[in-house]
Amino acid sequence: MDIFQYHQINAPQRLLMGPGPINADPRVLRAMATQLIGQYDPYMTDYMNEVMALYRDLFKTKNYWTILINGTSRAGIESILISTIHPGDKVLVLVFGRFGHLLCEIARRCKAEVYTIVVPWGEIVIPDKVEDAIKKIKPKLLLTVHGDTSTTMLQPLQEIGDVCEQYNVLFYTDATASIGGNILETDKWKLDAVSAGMQKCLGGPSGTSPITLSSKIEKVIRKRSCVESGIRTQEHKDGCNEIIYSNYFDLSMIMDYWGPQRLNHHTEATTALYGSRECARIILQDGLNKNISRHKKHGRAMLAGIQAMGLEIFGNINYKMNNILGVVIPLSINGNQVRKIMLEDFSIEIGTSFGALDGKIWRIGTMGYNARKDCVMQTLCALDSVLNYLGYRTVQGASLQAAWDYYEKHNND
Amino acid sequence: MDIFQYHQINAPQRLLMGPGPINADPRVLRAMATQLIGQYDPYMTDYMNEVMALYRDLFKTKNYWTILINGTSRAGIESILISTIHPGDKVLVLVFGRFGHLLCEIARRCKAEVYTIVVPWGEIVIPDKVEDAIKKIKPKLLLTVHGDTSTTMLQPLQEIGDVCEQYNVLFYTDATASIGGNILETDKWKLDAVSAGMQKCLGGPSGTSPITLSSKIEKVIRKRSCVESGIRTQEHKDGCNEIIYSNYFDLSMIMDYWGPQRLNHHTEATTALYGSRECARIILQDGLNKNISRHKKHGRAMLAGIQAMGLEIFGNINYKMNNILGVVIPLSINGNQVRKIMLEDFSIEIGTSFGALDGKIWRIGTMGYNARKDCVMQTLCALDSVLNYLGYRTVQGASLQAAWDYYEKHNND
Repeated sequence: MDIFQYHQINAPQRLLMGPGPINADPRVLRAMATQLIGQYDPYMTDYMNEVMALYRDLFKTKNYWTILINGTSRAGIESILISTIHPGDKVLVLVFGRFGHLLCEIARRCKAEVYTIVVPWGEIVIPDKVEDAIKKIKPKLLLTVHGDTSTTMLQPLQEIGDVCEQYNVLFYTDATASIGGNILETDKWKLDAVSAGMQKCLGGPSGTSPITLSSKIEKVIRKRSCVESGIRTQEHKDGCNEIIYSNYFDLSMIMDYWGPQRLNHHTEATTALYGSRECARIILQDGLNKNISRHKKHGRAMLAGIQAMGLEIFGNINYKMNNILGVVIPLSINGNQVRKIMLEDFSIEIGTSFGALDGKIWRIGTMGYNARKDCVMQTLCALDSVLNYLGYRTVQGASLQAAWDYYEKHNND
Repeated sequence: MDIFQYHQINAPQRLLMGPGPINADPRVLRAMATQLIGQYDPYMTDYMNEVMALYRDLFKTKNYWTILINGTSRAGIESILISTIHPGDKVLVLVFGRFGHLLCEIARRCKAEVYTIVVPWGEIVIPDKVEDAIKKIKPKLLLTVHGDTSTTMLQPLQEIGDVCEQYNVLFYTDATASIGGNILETDKWKLDAVSAGMQKCLGGPSGTSPITLSSKIEKVIRKRSCVESGIRTQEHKDGCNEIIYSNYFDLSMIMDYWGPQRLNHHTEATTALYGSRECARIILQDGLNKNISRHKKHGRAMLAGIQAMGLEIFGNINYKMNNILGVVIPLSINGNQVRKIMLEDFSIEIGTSFGALDGKIWRIGTMGYNARKDCVMQTLCALDSVLNYLGYRTVQGASLQAAWDYYEKHNND
């Protein structure tokens, strides 16, 4: 190995219009370039407290335990599931895309007895079905993704929250793809736990998972509390009852680290915390509702432009997330070839999907820093050109005109 | 909450001379401010391959599976333990500080049958003892910390590696605190798995854990291979045998993501990867041996200066890590008061320790970006002043003179 062949990072300037990660807001990257401070520095613990407050507002909750997990989105999911599920617990999972399968899989690894309501990809789950299943199964937890990027669907949660409350079922959702770009009401929807990620509508880099926990689920988690033997003192109770399978994801220990006890667990990822704080600060200073409207506006403009190319939209459009669009790849077209030309000749990235949808749909995102008019127009323009180049004919100018028309009508949205 | 009271990150300029995190190399922070690219962008997968190559050189190994875990140091530990240990497996853990206890705890959570060799804090474990224990217990794995910051001790591993090979025991070490600042020879010492962290001698921020796996341990891990149902296709084998307790830390899935298959798992934390690549690149361009010598030189200069204040060193000095020093707090002195004045009046952070050593010793680091003469001199100067201010008398000028003398003698080290 010739080490001098390894140069500085020199990543190409991409426009990331796929399902995420998308381009990070440059203000977030600048915040992350800040020099480190110690993990118990009063400035650091103040920043941790500020992060808790900021994310309470993003999650629309009063939950005290609103904290960061040091890992990607699925680290947040796993921390909640492994800390809450006892082996043998019944959980009911709504599956309407890849990430519903992920919830099942993680729950199974926690040794839950997993029940599912599965609907075809492109649809959402009807709340009535959920009540029937809850009555029959009597689960301890109900797990669902909020917005599943694999299918672009956004599952309505309010009625399900009411049902969960009525039957005393703990209610969890994975809001990685939806938070910041779609309405999410943790307290109003009676959610007991929500986890998220940075790399979608929040405009940051992957690597941190904000979570929030209700006091009800906190009590369930605290029953398995345990202080590490290396830092345990006389004041702490001996040993550990029903120890959970993970140390890294043991939320009672992570709460003791974020809470007033400040009991050492991991070494908080300071740089990631700086970035997460800046993501939330930018959105909240702009206004959360305004941020959601921005996602809706640019998502709809993209939709109008895509439809004007004569392309078919995947899934039930009434339940589409604001920030992502599934586009059925025309039979005459090689989807990967389009993505390759978009990337190589225009430096624009769009996505495909997973499993059965791999190569069948493109996924085009308009989220976070890239929920902007210029990003929408550039993407439509390039895609229209590439399709025509490959022999798929569109009406000249129609796609961009549809977007312009949409913007003109919704100038004040 | 008044969101406009939340200002830009404006962390104070600290000199972090504790046990880590320490100040990140500014070149690393700049690399991390690079804009994102997609996770399957050819530039991204090239960077992932480069990271594998760079960390092979840092770990001194030819192991193909040399990759990053997206989480702090203990995420790397847990990924290896949870992917390797079957419930009921016997593991032998060497415990000579807090982080040995952590290994026991994580192993117990993996449902291992845990055996320990415990020595008093400040000592290391004699290899003869290890052979006796292995003969008696016949463990599947031997786990040990390499350098334990809680006590500053560096456990010699070469002879233990020979013993492990002889008795066919898998050999793991946590090199978080030692890597880059002390000799670590993965292949020569016959280590099957090593995990590390960024925030000590590598000069980066916490949040990423580089790991390396021998082909022998890979085989053990692969037996529990499993492809997520959401992305499983006809080509993959059905279902999962002996599924491990974690999805996030399932190394067979993480290998499939880093390997030529590029099977989606988490969304790689791009910013953290940029930083980890830059840490390794800087050290290797400078020369790994030179980097270790630098840690030795400045660590010894700090030691000379501290001893010249008449302070007692904690632990067996023959086995001290290059990058960290335990200093017994004089009985007449309140250790936390000293740390507070150091931080508030000089903006210099030094550490205390954990458990029984909390408030009994200070821990002073000279590592990563802060293994520098100016950092040593500033820290000695400030500590000497604070001690005298609080009534602990030193010989005027003796501490700094001792450091100067050391540097003069070892100018060319």
